[in-house]
Amino acid sequence: MRIAGTWYRTIWLADDGRSVDVIDQRALPHNFEIMRLGTVEQAAYAISEMVVRGAPLIGATAAYGVCLALQKDPLHGSLDRALGMLGATRPTAVNLRWALDAMDEAVRYLPVEERVAAAYRLAAKICDDDVEISKNIGEYGLAIFREIVGAKGSGPLNILTHCNAGWLATVDWGTALAPIYMAYDAGLDVHVWVDETRPRNQGASLTAYELGAHGVPHSVIVDNVGGHLMQHGMVDVCIVGTDRTTATGDVANKIGTYLKALAAHDNGVPFYVALPQTTIDWHARDGVAEIPIEERDSKEVRFISGLGPDGRVVEVELTPPSSPATNYAFDVTPARLVTGLITDRGVCDASLEGLLGLFPEWEADMKNGDKE
Amino acid sequence: MRIAGTWYRTIWLADDGRSVDVIDQRALPHNFEIMRLGTVEQAAYAISEMVVRGAPLIGATAAYGVCLALQKDPLHGSLDRALGMLGATRPTAVNLRWALDAMDEAVRYLPVEERVAAAYRLAAKICDDDVEISKNIGEYGLAIFREIVGAKGSGPLNILTHCNAGWLATVDWGTALAPIYMAYDAGLDVHVWVDETRPRNQGASLTAYELGAHGVPHSVIVDNVGGHLMQHGMVDVCIVGTDRTTATGDVANKIGTYLKALAAHDNGVPFYVALPQTTIDWHARDGVAEIPIEERDSKEVRFISGLGPDGRVVEVELTPPSSPATNYAFDVTPARLVTGLITDRGVCDASLEGLLGLFPEWEADMKNGDKE
Repeated sequence: MRIAGTWYRTIWLADDGRSVDVIDQRALPHNFEIMRLGTVEQAAYAISEMVVRGAPLIGATAAYGVCLALQKDPLHGSLDRALGMLGATRPTAVNLRWALDAMDEAVRYLPVEERVAAAYRLAAKICDDDVEISKNIGEYGLAIFREIVGAKGSGPLNILTHCNAGWLATVDWGTALAPIYMAYDAGLDVHVWVDETRPRNQGASLTAYELGAHGVPHSVIVDNVGGHLMQHGMVDVCIVGTDRTTATGDVANKIGTYLKALAAHDNGVPFYVALPQTTIDWHARDGVAEIPIEERDSKEVRFISGLGPDGRVVEVELTPPSSPATNYAFDVTPARLVTGLITDRGVCDASLEGLLGLFPEWEADMKNGDKE
Repeated sequence: MRIAGTWYRTIWLADDGRSVDVIDQRALPHNFEIMRLGTVEQAAYAISEMVVRGAPLIGATAAYGVCLALQKDPLHGSLDRALGMLGATRPTAVNLRWALDAMDEAVRYLPVEERVAAAYRLAAKICDDDVEISKNIGEYGLAIFREIVGAKGSGPLNILTHCNAGWLATVDWGTALAPIYMAYDAGLDVHVWVDETRPRNQGASLTAYELGAHGVPHSVIVDNVGGHLMQHGMVDVCIVGTDRTTATGDVANKIGTYLKALAAHDNGVPFYVALPQTTIDWHARDGVAEIPIEERDSKEVRFISGLGPDGRVVEVELTPPSSPATNYAFDVTPARLVTGLITDRGVCDASLEGLLGLFPEWEADMKNGDKE
């Protein structure tokens, strides 16, 4: 992603060759700031405080967090401590767990002196792979958009998205937004309805920022509006990302996704979910019952940050001081409301059969799972 | 409603005997301010800028707006100008139109010297009647709550509401909140999930303020959360107000209501709409097709006000400056998603048959309508 003439990823090895630089997403859209992570504690902080967010980027940051821990102390105690600390940062995203398992496997049985280099190699590969995965998702999604445009005939393709599943949620390109960038670059007439995505406003801040930087036409809406737009034929397709997908196609994503999927279903609007295969939790069958939903600090509901009249970012209180607030961060959209899953291996039905069609290597595990 | 020991309505005749005082709802929950309306222009401003809001209170304010115009000039030109100006303030609420028609009818054919007094008499009666209407709605709603509590057996009655349909939306008591106040006063164990209701946050500011002042346990949630709560059995009943109800039971209410109704339907949670009969538009049959939906300034999406760290209310910008925003203020919930309508005459199905059962005086009109 190009910002003011410079090509950025969301995470990269710093010029000291061991620290990691990330874009501090809390400062967007008002300020573009880079934060340097020099310790595993700082990496864990960056994830839990949402300096970085988005399932793929969380995984990449956690991988580098393991590198930072080993760089300081490559013994197993340090590795275990890092895995525990990073694993506890966010409970819902499953590819956080995937990245940590991959790092663990890659370094645990190596001689001590080889662990650091191996860790940095794998973290870099996880980042490079993520870019390729996003590009693949983008191309599969673009094909779907072309079909919808063909069927529609005239007028812009109106796409609704929730939260941020763009390049800021990944290492580059994005998941749900990758097809949008590719459609725009291919000359399709696209317009994006951007759900602001309370409480942290990742849509109004991050998605709007990304789309604007790329030149993609878009309009910010509050989270309440999507149903009305769909009732009036103003949305041709919905596309969102996911933090965890069950083997049966249930989708955990940012809180509020379920409501948009219900509206899409009620109005015959296709509802797609874009995901790297690392977000599939092959051990989960019932998303509503099994996926842990993170509950975050109520402060995120009661306060909001924005650019004040003096040009400085300020936090303001929205609620009466004596009113409590509750802050669930994700919800689960049942597979029955999902038109299709757009993965890095292709598009499939949101079902076990659909997923196994693209990922046949899991068939044996799934059968064993049934016997348990 | 008692605030700090004083009993308030939301609108009352000022001590000069001709101006009208209202609570400036834009300042809540941080400040309690009274605004004096001395001219019809000020009354129109108060409605369009949402100093006052809520369908019943809009009607009451418009009625007093006509008084203020006649007080200055009781001739027909002044009356017509006032009706036009006030009628153009908000397009969706139908009892704005109802109140203006009632005022027009009451004064137009009177001798000039009698018009002012007649207007003030009717405006006062509209306010008094609204209080009675709200009390009736409260009692009918309370009976429904008692039934749900009886069926549930144990634990608090968890009620979800959207926007503000409380005493701040009416002259006193409220529509959707009236049964909640009565349930609390009757000793029922109630807890209210308060949708913050972006973009203007009437839930987080007004409903939370009202419930807190009355002592009713509540939690503020962002508009995205309700579906998740319903999936997990954490909502026993939804209750909302409405700005316009078709003769067939479709309900126009604050944007986002439709999404909650979909979630309630998907999870078997009863979804009730509380309304004074003045919000019924007997001429409308298809809410989505026929009810005009107000589109408001995008500034309401791009900026938000809150209490800053220095204790002053400040407006902050949420979106990138180059990102446009779109701001629809209402949506329509189809009758098929509504469990029942709680009116001041009792509870009925959200259907023409249901409404005619309570309002048989409209049967002739409805039959004539079918012939047109």
